[in-house]
Amino acid sequence: MDIIRAGLVGVTGYTGMELVRLIEGHPCMRLTRVTSRQEAGRPLVSVYPFLHNLESGQLTISEPDPDDLAANCDVVFLAIPHGAAMTLGAALVRKGLKVVDLSADFRIRDKATYEQWYKVEHTEPEVLAQAVYGLPELYADRIAKASLAANPGCYPTAAILALYPALKHDLIDSADIVIDAKSGVSGAGRSPSLGTLFCEVSDSFRAYNLGKHRHTPEIEQELSVIAGEGVTLSFNPHLLPVNRGILSTIYTRLAPGISLPTALEIARDAYAQTYAGSSFVRLLPDGDLPELRFVRGTMFCDIALVIDPRTNRLIILSAIDNLCRGASGQAVANANLMCGLPLETGLRLAPLVP
Amino acid sequence: MDIIRAGLVGVTGYTGMELVRLIEGHPCMRLTRVTSRQEAGRPLVSVYPFLHNLESGQLTISEPDPDDLAANCDVVFLAIPHGAAMTLGAALVRKGLKVVDLSADFRIRDKATYEQWYKVEHTEPEVLAQAVYGLPELYADRIAKASLAANPGCYPTAAILALYPALKHDLIDSADIVIDAKSGVSGAGRSPSLGTLFCEVSDSFRAYNLGKHRHTPEIEQELSVIAGEGVTLSFNPHLLPVNRGILSTIYTRLAPGISLPTALEIARDAYAQTYAGSSFVRLLPDGDLPELRFVRGTMFCDIALVIDPRTNRLIILSAIDNLCRGASGQAVANANLMCGLPLETGLRLAPLVP
Amino acid sequence: MDIIRAGLVGVTGYTGMELVRLIEGHPCMRLTRVTSRQEAGRPLVSVYPFLHNLESGQLTISEPDPDDLAANCDVVFLAIPHGAAMTLGAALVRKGLKVVDLSADFRIRDKATYEQWYKVEHTEPEVLAQAVYGLPELYADRIAKASLAANPGCYPTAAILALYPALKHDLIDSADIVIDAKSGVSGAGRSPSLGTLFCEVSDSFRAYNLGKHRHTPEIEQELSVIAGEGVTLSFNPHLLPVNRGILSTIYTRLAPGISLPTALEIARDAYAQTYAGSSFVRLLPDGDLPELRFVRGTMFCDIALVIDPRTNRLIILSAIDNLCRGASGQAVANANLMCGLPLETGLRLAPLVP
Amino acid sequence: MDIIRAGLVGVTGYTGMELVRLIEGHPCMRLTRVTSRQEAGRPLVSVYPFLHNLESGQLTISEPDPDDLAANCDVVFLAIPHGAAMTLGAALVRKGLKVVDLSADFRIRDKATYEQWYKVEHTEPEVLAQAVYGLPELYADRIAKASLAANPGCYPTAAILALYPALKHDLIDSADIVIDAKSGVSGAGRSPSLGTLFCEVSDSFRAYNLGKHRHTPEIEQELSVIAGEGVTLSFNPHLLPVNRGILSTIYTRLAPGISLPTALEIARDAYAQTYAGSSFVRLLPDGDLPELRFVRGTMFCDIALVIDPRTNRLIILSAIDNLCRGASGQAVANANLMCGLPLETGLRLAPLVP
Repeated sequence: MDIIRAGLVGVTGYTGMELVRLIEGHPCMRLTRVTSRQEAGRPLVSVYPFLHNLESGQLTISEPDPDDLAANCDVVFLAIPHGAAMTLGAALVRKGLKVVDLSADFRIRDKATYEQWYKVEHTEPEVLAQAVYGLPELYADRIAKASLAANPGCYPTAAILALYPALKHDLIDSADIVIDAKSGVSGAGRSPSLGTLFCEVSDSFRAYNLGKHRHTPEIEQELSVIAGEGVTLSFNPHLLPVNRGILSTIYTRLAPGISLPTALEIARDAYAQTYAGSSFVRLLPDGDLPELRFVRGTMFCDIALVIDPRTNRLIILSAIDNLCRGASGQAVANANLMCGLPLETGLRLAPLVP
Repeated sequence: MDIIRAGLVGVTGYTGMELVRLIEGHPCMRLTRVTSRQEAGRPLVSVYPFLHNLESGQLTISEPDPDDLAANCDVVFLAIPHGAAMTLGAALVRKGLKVVDLSADFRIRDKATYEQWYKVEHTEPEVLAQAVYGLPELYADRIAKASLAANPGCYPTAAILALYPALKHDLIDSADIVIDAKSGVSGAGRSPSLGTLFCEVSDSFRAYNLGKHRHTPEIEQELSVIAGEGVTLSFNPHLLPVNRGILSTIYTRLAPGISLPTALEIARDAYAQTYAGSSFVRLLPDGDLPELRFVRGTMFCDIALVIDPRTNRLIILSAIDNLCRGASGQAVANANLMCGLPLETGLRLAPLVP
Repeated sequence: MDIIRAGLVGVTGYTGMELVRLIEGHPCMRLTRVTSRQEAGRPLVSVYPFLHNLESGQLTISEPDPDDLAANCDVVFLAIPHGAAMTLGAALVRKGLKVVDLSADFRIRDKATYEQWYKVEHTEPEVLAQAVYGLPELYADRIAKASLAANPGCYPTAAILALYPALKHDLIDSADIVIDAKSGVSGAGRSPSLGTLFCEVSDSFRAYNLGKHRHTPEIEQELSVIAGEGVTLSFNPHLLPVNRGILSTIYTRLAPGISLPTALEIARDAYAQTYAGSSFVRLLPDGDLPELRFVRGTMFCDIALVIDPRTNRLIILSAIDNLCRGASGQAVANANLMCGLPLETGLRLAPLVP
Repeated sequence: MDIIRAGLVGVTGYTGMELVRLIEGHPCMRLTRVTSRQEAGRPLVSVYPFLHNLESGQLTISEPDPDDLAANCDVVFLAIPHGAAMTLGAALVRKGLKVVDLSADFRIRDKATYEQWYKVEHTEPEVLAQAVYGLPELYADRIAKASLAANPGCYPTAAILALYPALKHDLIDSADIVIDAKSGVSGAGRSPSLGTLFCEVSDSFRAYNLGKHRHTPEIEQELSVIAGEGVTLSFNPHLLPVNRGILSTIYTRLAPGISLPTALEIARDAYAQTYAGSSFVRLLPDGDLPELRFVRGTMFCDIALVIDPRTNRLIILSAIDNLCRGASGQAVANANLMCGLPLETGLRLAPLVP
């Protein structure tokens, strides 16, 4: 089989870093271009000293140039901020490249909703219309045929996978959903800022952007499709003093038709059936609860179901690695599908514990 | 003024350790006895090397003996497991000592509820009947006259202070409360166990005991008193990779009479009024959110109010130091009241940041 | 006694933050001015939300103005970068204020050495000539009479206190000293930078500036005075994933006259005698070793002595809190002396453990 | 090629855990037996929930039985305490199995030295005599023919690789070596103990066993072979609040013949030449220093060389992942060699950063 040539636009952030790690271990994909406006001209290994003696360390960072990317890549990963990805992503699609965009620019199907939450005009509505939301458990077939996969946000990945079976099988009241999400610091990016300094985060914990985080419309968009009706929910992120990982504790109310004594069994069956063919989603045995370390460095989304009989609630927990499953690993999975490879190629990774 | 002589039964745990720190800095209280069955006979400084050159380091650890405590102490702190505290606490009360019990043995007024959740028979119903729940913001007057103060649990302290004004002023639906609580590891105690080893906790995060934690009936007991009706809620703890602190994110539904446009103002007024005389409770300005580091080592309970207008919810956040405000500091506050001192004596501490 | 009015120039860094904490708990000192060019005009509590309900939170940040400081302060702490402190410190001294400078500007007595290591011209040689190196265990008498105390660097505090008795008593070869120092991240300051982001530091460890750190000439200056001859040593700092603390492991060779069988006893006696009157220095019992947590938030310098008989070495370990003992706490101690107070006023603090 | 059947004796510790991760990703090796006396009979996935949907999770834990291992394995990894490994290792060798012993039992060639440091009689001198020290950079050829590879300790791996070229090329004074080593907590094992609880380690740092650690004779044994004379050095370990990794800072004195101006160049050449064929050892460019995160989860040993011209010292830094390179990964490398596979099979891993 031919080796897939991959371009990585925006190599200096944490998602870029993680893409390098994953493609380094991928049996059928190789990095041919890594770009950064700031670091162009430097060897990649001088920016990432941990790449000595690894293949990708030998690359030289270049400016992101669409023609150059088109000439040297089969698929391009965009690990750059929203807004910037919009223009470059569309240009690359028009040149016939397969594009996996890790920004938010092509995730929200409704242009107005995107513009309202992201405060940017969407200038590429045509490409937006043909983009596919890159969550393989929902859209594998369409991703395989897409020219641009809009790689889901990290919080949405954890939330949608957790709620998908419950809404699909009408187990819960779709109007009463609260997501309490906790993320590691890598989710905040690699730009120096006071709020992500070690001494501001370590040995501490805090909430932020309660009810106002930009991932909210993305979660609601996908859950509304699943539920067959508009879903409005309360999404509330927190910042954990860990490098990687998102754990979401999701509070839902059992639907009227679900009786308590059989609720857990019914829920388990629905989840097991929904994810029967999805080896990346792991439904934990009753009593087990997810832990961030159990998914560190992997594509797994660990899900647990808990019934709180005292308040008639189904509590759903999900854990992912925000950089791997929630960003770069999922991007590779999408690229696999778009390039005709099995979804899991290069991604059957065991967690790094401890 | 006379110096209050304090006894500390159970010095080897984290709450014992924190009591030593606080009493060391207390202007009117001095440790005269520290006990531990395992370490009896050793100088305290050999167990706690950080006490060199501090006054309490010179103490010798003794066996917990009621007569000896009665002869040498005015007030005794019990920092021992539930069950053990029940017997010793009652014995000390009968000897005329003032007792602050940091265990759960005298917190639950209903004997049957205690026995159901703690799987232990309560053998001291008479002392239980006269014990006062040691949350100063609710019961300062009664604590001042009590012979035994049942020091609140760490999670209940954070939860009750957060919900007290909302229920007292009928701002929320008392039947729809979800507490998502996150605690530092010191809350799990100092006994060696696999689950609290550094490598099992560090760089990770998990939930535990969802809907089943023993602090649930304690929270419900106090909130039911405030609400004037039985409150059943969903309480869900998580374990943070930090030493100290509890942050609770509490999801409530606005009561029917509270209209969205004025909800935040009304809520702010209710909280400000309720805590007008309570300098340990800090209602943060709109937009600010609590952080664990801001209360590290202090008696403060930081509270923030957030309206989620999209789902008609009032989200209440509270942060405390689980060892200081949630255990040993609150115990000293109760002892202050019981000994006729101002509540804040020795407890006006600024946080250690970073 | 009159309350000492203190000014704090440069409140927004970690040493400024720590000064606020310490002065907040000081019985005879009160902040009257806090300055920051960037934040002037804002209430201090809006920059430091953890100061709600504390006295210093009510201050308004002002521009650093020498006349205003002279009119409203008895003593001024300079917590600003070197270079800037030089000019302002000299101006304040000329206005008759007592100054404690936490920068490096007045630590190096030799102008040329300062200029070589700090790459800045020293424009205030007269004030430099009268400045006193603010290490109380060495210079308490002179500090008490000084108009400007040059507060020692964090690494030098830990290193000099560790080596002082060994050199004073000729226990070691002064030409064969290696200091392997490990510091928490707060020592790197509060300005946003890639290298101190949580995800670059957490769960990692590294050395930096080996043999080239600017604290080297400061350490050598003081040790040379003690040894009575020029001392050149190897000083090598490392960055720990902790908030606070410096632990130095210092490798020395026993002097020819010291025989192995009695070396430990002789060393212990020398250290005990040297620090007999210094309650902030704690010589640990044989077998005990310092830990950063044991000095967290305190003025203690914990010292342990270990003989390695296989290689004829005396290994000296010292641990301090870099922000308290290594900066702001030591600054308050110096201010105490300069204002006629006992050294320990407001500084007899027990560590926050855990 | 046939798949190599591997047995893992002692699956419940951190080295066992890491072996499972590495063999899971190995293209030519498969776990056929995992043993633990305590957990025998349980599915491996119930002990390690992070193995759901991974192949090794389906194994059932068994008692360690030599006959059963001999019947079902080609190679056996012993991840059990010293003493226990001695007996079982010898038994397995006698049954014709290839054995990689991760304990210390077969590392020290001199029986008396082993017994002096480990306080255990060595009852298998014959097997000891034929064991090969499993450091591939030194002994690859002999390992390939060995029946038992004594897998090096974590500290010795980092120390020996760092010092090997310097001693081999006579760059340094072999009588003046100080190793200041800092290790993550996983090196202390997975048995519950007070000293490795999260709250005793987090946000702290300490030295331990200075000059007395059991890895000392192992380091000296190998360095003496290289130096061609007896080497006695000072080895001093410290405990870092990180999960994985060892960073050693090694202080040496340049040999008389090495002149300062060319010392760095000479040293670089010696190291480059020594490790020319060893892709797991990465000699960093001048000015770069190793960081633990850069080797996390990998087989790399990163080495930096620094000349301190002021004290005529060569400072050598080395960083490894103590669990991977320092234990389980090196064990797999040894098994590769013993089974006729290329050293790097299954071990060309990129680090998990952040």
